Amino acid sequence: MKTPRTLLISCALHLAFSSLGHADEIIFSTSAGDVALSSVANNLEYPWSLAFLPSGEMLVSERPGRLRLVRNGRMSPPIGGLPAIFAKGQSGLLDVVVARDFTHSRIIYFCYGEGADGGARLAVARARLLADESPRLDHVETIFHQIGPVTRGLAIINIGCRIVEAEDGNLFVTLGDHAANSRQALPAQSLDNHLGKIIRIRPDGTSPPDNPFLGTHDALPEIWAFGLRNPEGLAFNPATGELWEQEHGPMGGDEINIISRGNNYGWPLVSYGRNYDGSPVGDGKQKGPGLVDPIWYWAPSLAASGMMFYTGNLFPGWKGSLFNGGLKSKLLSRLVLDGHRVVSDERMLEGLNERIRDVRQGPDGAIYLLTDNKEGRILRMAPRKG
Amino acid sequence: MKTPRTLLISCALHLAFSSLGHADEIIFSTSAGDVALSSVANNLEYPWSLAFLPSGEMLVSERPGRLRLVRNGRMSPPIGGLPAIFAKGQSGLLDVVVARDFTHSRIIYFCYGEGADGGARLAVARARLLADESPRLDHVETIFHQIGPVTRGLAIINIGCRIVEAEDGNLFVTLGDHAANSRQALPAQSLDNHLGKIIRIRPDGTSPPDNPFLGTHDALPEIWAFGLRNPEGLAFNPATGELWEQEHGPMGGDEINIISRGNNYGWPLVSYGRNYDGSPVGDGKQKGPGLVDPIWYWAPSLAASGMMFYTGNLFPGWKGSLFNGGLKSKLLSRLVLDGHRVVSDERMLEGLNERIRDVRQGPDGAIYLLTDNKEGRILRMAPRKG
Repeated sequence: MKTPRTLLISCALHLAFSSLGHADEIIFSTSAGDVALSSVANNLEYPWSLAFLPSGEMLVSERPGRLRLVRNGRMSPPIGGLPAIFAKGQSGLLDVVVARDFTHSRIIYFCYGEGADGGARLAVARARLLADESPRLDHVETIFHQIGPVTRGLAIINIGCRIVEAEDGNLFVTLGDHAANSRQALPAQSLDNHLGKIIRIRPDGTSPPDNPFLGTHDALPEIWAFGLRNPEGLAFNPATGELWEQEHGPMGGDEINIISRGNNYGWPLVSYGRNYDGSPVGDGKQKGPGLVDPIWYWAPSLAASGMMFYTGNLFPGWKGSLFNGGLKSKLLSRLVLDGHRVVSDERMLEGLNERIRDVRQGPDGAIYLLTDNKEGRILRMAPRKG
Repeated sequence: MKTPRTLLISCALHLAFSSLGHADEIIFSTSAGDVALSSVANNLEYPWSLAFLPSGEMLVSERPGRLRLVRNGRMSPPIGGLPAIFAKGQSGLLDVVVARDFTHSRIIYFCYGEGADGGARLAVARARLLADESPRLDHVETIFHQIGPVTRGLAIINIGCRIVEAEDGNLFVTLGDHAANSRQALPAQSLDNHLGKIIRIRPDGTSPPDNPFLGTHDALPEIWAFGLRNPEGLAFNPATGELWEQEHGPMGGDEINIISRGNNYGWPLVSYGRNYDGSPVGDGKQKGPGLVDPIWYWAPSLAASGMMFYTGNLFPGWKGSLFNGGLKSKLLSRLVLDGHRVVSDERMLEGLNERIRDVRQGPDGAIYLLTDNKEGRILRMAPRKG
């Protein structure tokens, strides 16, 4: 029998671990006491999204275009049946979610990049997952194709994308601005395209009749909210029912927004952040007429990706907290909420030295993380035993 | 001519510098661009408080019981005329403030520990500062003596103390709980003593007639608010006129409170933090009947000391922000405010590796810091030139 080894890491020391490597567990000190991080799966190439099936099995996407099932700690081969995926820059296979009625319908949704005009356009697909001995997809159907000025010249960055399913079965999908805003054009502020938007679509991709811009000239019917940059987190707040969004902003401008029907979140007219060359964004103001302010921003930036409201029992003191993954910052941010107010920001896992792409709650109440590496992994965080 | 040398420190690297040492400036990257830290005065033994005179000269207290004037970058010898100061543990010469009418009155106030029953009791004194060629004190008068169970057995910690002068000339003074709360007694919750309180006194130490507990049986007339632990920051919010307090709490429980007449801030019945042995504080709840919640807390703790609302022109983007010094955390926290909401917490100067005891705004709009060391110093933070 293998003897588990344990490494104790102090946040304050900021020790650098490039991987879990030789330890079975890493211990971190947090406001909930010591927590243990253990590796659930290894050797995932830039894993992007983690979704739990009702069975407790996990679906995990890898950005280069693979989807796998993790069952009893073992990872399946890539699941066949995916559409053609354009994997370049930040484009590839991105978010994956499991429908509420999965047990009966076997439906999953996923978001991916399609090659078009030499650039990447996002698309959303629906499929049935047959998860018996060898999992495979069936009835794969692309229900949404992004429209917008995404062309050969653009760097393939600021893609988005996250999907959440509302209680009524409609889907909210975040779509990044593809860094397409310029002096000449501000597509994130224009309703004739899908860049820098959150859309709301039915499970078949059509637009619900109460979408806000259905009657607006030149506006695309799927749009629910606009003026966004690179939203890589989206979740319903279980305490309020509101849709909250995490925005991967410019330097010093990662934000938490509360998304409401038809609202404009200001990008790139206003931002708390600055461009990466240090220049101000837009007119440099933080508020503008008709624009909705974030309720929180990180300075310096998290380089945020992945967002989850914690509701489990394994960390009772963390119920209602909003967890956020950090890429460049290599940490996990726990925002403590009092309604729409953030009253604390606990930054944990400093010293793990891993880019965090996604954070999800498991059915066991543990917190699961994806690390953004060529040799990425699924980590499970739980209270330290004993 | 000496050539200035410059060190560039990245926050992300968390490099450890034990002192400014051989560099004339240290550069840090912040949301306001690069800032330069330079040393204004060195070789101060545990400097505690910094106060500017209308002339731009600075008074600086050293905890072992010295007060000095800094004039044109040169430090005076210890100013004579201080009362007997009990310097042990966290007791000694603490806060010093300059009266609003100093130009005419020459009045300063300071807070210090008196030896009593083998422990430390806080006292507040008023004096006239004669600051000609050789500065000295005159008309020194102790206007307040702390009452409370401060005895030989207690460790000399959680002392407080900060003083602010209101526009009407009355003084608000924070007084720590001396870690005197126990299973047997909760002095911070009792009005018959001055532990864990904010008091309000006239310049002569008497109680204004509208103090909240003047008519209350067994209550001390100076008390303005109670239920505090170790308040080491106090300032009026210039945007609202409210008195804000920074609480050096237990582990994970450093807080920002808005202080109102007669309120109970809950210590040690409730706290977001935990005792340093990991056990919960009080009943572990975060809210209680009749208790006022903080608007913010830090997790992990800053080990906060020194608080300042920035109103200067040197950092236009930081106007209205609330700066907080960190001792154990060795950083400076800038809270961005939207009324009573904190919308961001920028943590800067990580990598300086200095405990920060006090933070003040200079008449030049620069930000001045005191480092908490046997060889402490006054640091000036300003935008990097060129």
